Amino acid sequence: MKYQAIRTSAWKANLQLPKLNLVLFTFGNVSVIDRALGVFAIKPSGVPYDELTIEKMVIVDLDGNTVDGDLRPSSDTLTHAVLYKHWTSIGSIVHTHSLYATAWAQTQRDIPIYGTTHADHTTVDIPCAPPMNDTMISGNYEYETGIQIINCMKEKGLSHEDVEMMLVGNHAPFTWGKTPEKAVYNSAVLENIAHMAYLTEQIEPKSARLKDALIKKHFERKHGPDSYYGQSS
Amino acid sequence: MKYQAIRTSAWKANLQLPKLNLVLFTFGNVSVIDRALGVFAIKPSGVPYDELTIEKMVIVDLDGNTVDGDLRPSSDTLTHAVLYKHWTSIGSIVHTHSLYATAWAQTQRDIPIYGTTHADHTTVDIPCAPPMNDTMISGNYEYETGIQIINCMKEKGLSHEDVEMMLVGNHAPFTWGKTPEKAVYNSAVLENIAHMAYLTEQIEPKSARLKDALIKKHFERKHGPDSYYGQSS
Amino acid sequence: MKYQAIRTSAWKANLQLPKLNLVLFTFGNVSVIDRALGVFAIKPSGVPYDELTIEKMVIVDLDGNTVDGDLRPSSDTLTHAVLYKHWTSIGSIVHTHSLYATAWAQTQRDIPIYGTTHADHTTVDIPCAPPMNDTMISGNYEYETGIQIINCMKEKGLSHEDVEMMLVGNHAPFTWGKTPEKAVYNSAVLENIAHMAYLTEQIEPKSARLKDALIKKHFERKHGPDSYYGQSS
Amino acid sequence: MKYQAIRTSAWKANLQLPKLNLVLFTFGNVSVIDRALGVFAIKPSGVPYDELTIEKMVIVDLDGNTVDGDLRPSSDTLTHAVLYKHWTSIGSIVHTHSLYATAWAQTQRDIPIYGTTHADHTTVDIPCAPPMNDTMISGNYEYETGIQIINCMKEKGLSHEDVEMMLVGNHAPFTWGKTPEKAVYNSAVLENIAHMAYLTEQIEPKSARLKDALIKKHFERKHGPDSYYGQSS
Repeated sequence: MKYQAIRTSAWKANLQLPKLNLVLFTFGNVSVIDRALGVFAIKPSGVPYDELTIEKMVIVDLDGNTVDGDLRPSSDTLTHAVLYKHWTSIGSIVHTHSLYATAWAQTQRDIPIYGTTHADHTTVDIPCAPPMNDTMISGNYEYETGIQIINCMKEKGLSHEDVEMMLVGNHAPFTWGKTPEKAVYNSAVLENIAHMAYLTEQIEPKSARLKDALIKKHFERKHGPDSYYGQSS
Repeated sequence: MKYQAIRTSAWKANLQLPKLNLVLFTFGNVSVIDRALGVFAIKPSGVPYDELTIEKMVIVDLDGNTVDGDLRPSSDTLTHAVLYKHWTSIGSIVHTHSLYATAWAQTQRDIPIYGTTHADHTTVDIPCAPPMNDTMISGNYEYETGIQIINCMKEKGLSHEDVEMMLVGNHAPFTWGKTPEKAVYNSAVLENIAHMAYLTEQIEPKSARLKDALIKKHFERKHGPDSYYGQSS
Repeated sequence: MKYQAIRTSAWKANLQLPKLNLVLFTFGNVSVIDRALGVFAIKPSGVPYDELTIEKMVIVDLDGNTVDGDLRPSSDTLTHAVLYKHWTSIGSIVHTHSLYATAWAQTQRDIPIYGTTHADHTTVDIPCAPPMNDTMISGNYEYETGIQIINCMKEKGLSHEDVEMMLVGNHAPFTWGKTPEKAVYNSAVLENIAHMAYLTEQIEPKSARLKDALIKKHFERKHGPDSYYGQSS
Repeated sequence: MKYQAIRTSAWKANLQLPKLNLVLFTFGNVSVIDRALGVFAIKPSGVPYDELTIEKMVIVDLDGNTVDGDLRPSSDTLTHAVLYKHWTSIGSIVHTHSLYATAWAQTQRDIPIYGTTHADHTTVDIPCAPPMNDTMISGNYEYETGIQIINCMKEKGLSHEDVEMMLVGNHAPFTWGKTPEKAVYNSAVLENIAHMAYLTEQIEPKSARLKDALIKKHFERKHGPDSYYGQSS
């Protein structure tokens, strides 16, 4: 019973992925952490979204060991575990193979910031981590994927609290957030940004990045100390 | 009670945006003005479309001050206010981040008139206002956005009664009209025109603009004094 | 009462257009002819598809004069009338502004035959009629559009019984058939062919046209005297 | 009654094609074999998916002769028969004209392996068989199509158990599998891979193929002897 809350919210969040058109079949997963208990709930591996139930969500500790549940957890579980361990302020992680974000990941390019839709969510190009070296791949692959994400953020001087989305080169996107609602929201926003950036370059290959004043303005009106977007809480 | 009419029609018009596939989450807003009362009803900021009610629509005056309503109005409210103040014949304004129109805005290019679908609605390329200078951006940003739209129309010698749609460079589209039905219709038409123009250039980068005789013919059969499209009123 | 049959089938066929995703708002129309009575039923101008009723369909003669009905017929009525007059074996005509077919029309290019999906329906590139000269445009425009379609078929040596679809340059597609079901089917097939040809050229700009043996084989297995596609009637 | 099992599962599998957005009208078909009886059930030719019933599925032997059923079988029946005869371990075959896979087929290019979504399903580029020579085309066309698929696999040194999907040049995709569920799944996955590869090349024409270590890792975690994707059976 003590896992019921994260099981329920992980189940609800996973069901958002097909509704938002972010997954084909089982190609995605959401997890939600309970920091007090030191465990997270994650989608079971290979189970179709329309067969998911609250009870089927698997409870895993931060080393990726199953603590409770009858099914095998997502094959990406260790990536989630590593991110939760290093980034103690995040509450939920989403992984999808959404169409446009995955295509960008397959090019190994960062997604340039071309407009205010992008700037409303982050002030930098969406980072794309390079593929790992062969030793990491043939070793503890999913663990190393998490380390790769963390290292890429460090090398680019980015904070996971400012930038809640990343592409893993040749693979696909990961997003995160304080809540599952925010983490799923970020996946849908990333797909939207990836789609718009693709179209922008197709229409005009020489399109310029958004200028600094607009980046700053749009991000701050939504996220700065004097933000005036949304309702005050 | 005296605001019920514009609240209701603004609510209805806002609900059209997700139905017409013009918005992701809360990325858009519609307002409707009551010229006699000198106020307009607008979507509250950051509220999801499926949680909107008539009562939640915010009533604002032409300086952007909230006159009635419990919620904070759209962060784009001052842009709406400026346009209503300067263009006294318009009754409604729509702002979205629809996919293709926004991609064109991100290239800072006008959308060339390539066919009769475009000419049925306007005789000129869809104008794209350049991004503002940094002083305007860091100043009263939403107010200046309205001024930028108005100035761009002036510089291009266009009337807001002939051309009811515009892209704001690196940002997204705005459309307007005498009624909320027409303003929302214009947003959907603009997205359609933007999509077709994108495909046209992809198929044949050297495509020619529509010739003058066809522009004139198509616009006049729908809008001229001897128009014969639709039912006579 | 004597027009009930064509009114009903024109109404049904018009309703297929939004279902098949071929029209935005009112941008399309279907007509169905009664050859014995010398009249056809056509969509009223500017009426949204969800407000159409059997009674609203307008009955028009082959000179485009309204014979029965309270509403103004489609502004494209004279184009339909001309085609019915010259091509006595066709029973229905469809006009849409469907996305991909219209984009090809805006480039003034024929759609090359790249695969068997195309060859299953016609053995030639989908013809695109050039835009009319200015005198024809400013004259009896819709009448001349029909003449332009007929002349383009003649110049290319094509029969309207073999090729039941055409693009009008800078405008949009027209399709026809012996029955309304077939004419609407042709509009959806044309949009599919246009979409695939677009993708084919994007993936490989030097793609070759389908070779003659495959064109012949696929067309004949569906349409030749020894066809073996579908159920024998 | 002895054909009821394959009729039912073929019927169910055929209905998945429109649900997964893989077919327009009747442009596709699924068959399911009963190895003990030496016959397979296949969609009747030209019958719309929403008019399909279990009883309408046609029972055919491995030479393509109808054994049971009132309707003519799919015009592609002989291709299915040839594949079943040569590849004795497969249980179901799917043919569609899905948009992106068909566009790749029209370019006669293999689909390069650009990411893990692809590697999760096969370790090689998706093979595209060249169009047949004219004698084969004008001869027993559907039979030769099967032979062409088998020969292409042989020439590329591929096993039909490792690679369950192929493009036929200028035509469209075929997929197969041990079960109808798997064969249909493969068609949807192929369309997804084809779409992503298209976008990848549009965004960055010089994108590199996925490196070997990642291909191996992703395929093996899902299909190798130590696979850990999905639930153990």
